Amino acid sequence: MNFVKIVSIIRPEALEKVEMALKSMNVPGVSITNIQGYGEYANFFRHDRMVQHIQVEIFIGKRQATEIAEKIMEVAHSGIEGDGIVAIIPVESVYHIRTRQKCGDEVC
Amino acid sequence: MNFVKIVSIIRPEALEKVEMALKSMNVPGVSITNIQGYGEYANFFRHDRMVQHIQVEIFIGKRQATEIAEKIMEVAHSGIEGDGIVAIIPVESVYHIRTRQKCGDEVC
Amino acid sequence: MNFVKIVSIIRPEALEKVEMALKSMNVPGVSITNIQGYGEYANFFRHDRMVQHIQVEIFIGKRQATEIAEKIMEVAHSGIEGDGIVAIIPVESVYHIRTRQKCGDEVC
Repeated sequence: MNFVKIVSIIRPEALEKVEMALKSMNVPGVSITNIQGYGEYANFFRHDRMVQHIQVEIFIGKRQATEIAEKIMEVAHSGIEGDGIVAIIPVESVYHIRTRQKCGDEVC
Repeated sequence: MNFVKIVSIIRPEALEKVEMALKSMNVPGVSITNIQGYGEYANFFRHDRMVQHIQVEIFIGKRQATEIAEKIMEVAHSGIEGDGIVAIIPVESVYHIRTRQKCGDEVC
Repeated sequence: MNFVKIVSIIRPEALEKVEMALKSMNVPGVSITNIQGYGEYANFFRHDRMVQHIQVEIFIGKRQATEIAEKIMEVAHSGIEGDGIVAIIPVESVYHIRTRQKCGDEVC
């Protein structure tokens, strides 16, 4: 199991900085979704306390995961409630559709 | 590995009950996305059999996971096809962006 | 751990073929989300290089996972950059809300 999925839940304002950081680290692919959330990042001005956050997902070789997660944490940090989280999730295998290859090592 | 991700796919009508249950259990953060789905929960009145479901995702300490998953199952249950599922996914590590801390134990 | 989650990130044009393949393999449930992405699948005609992709997620018994992942790879393949990936993620447990059962074996 050489791959992981890095899931970050960040403020919309932090997205550009996170994307630039990921590009500078040569992260080969990124998926972005809008999500609603509450929690520490509750919005007490809205009745339902839901706020808009951005979910950024990356599939990456295990060896680079900690460095990337720490970089996201650094650039997405404001120090105010609602900064979000970064999580690393194990991945069993990855297949590359264009080349029809199972990724055996950390690249494919 | 002290953390897991709980992913629930539920009916839109069940969301309010699930949110109230999660708040009553002091779940610190929740992400919500709209998804399209088919399956047992197929909508045979629509040509493409796709229905709208809600995905609720939680990152939580492993110790609380079973209790929370069972609670979601209980409150989202109607007994009719399309009630959805709850899944528990292992998580390797979680970082808290506001405090710039890796969560070592079940809180951070 | 008898279950996995299969996550595919594919071109919008490939969705219909993937859905037909999954139905023909009797995959019981599928969730679909629109995502933005960049990477190998960068769109250099848009300023932000973001393109629209589709994320297809399946919870399935481990025994069928490789066959389904390879089938998705086969039908979503065009050979051009941006074809996307298929990943298999371990799942600890699945609960079926309609029947209020924890899925112990590969079906529930």
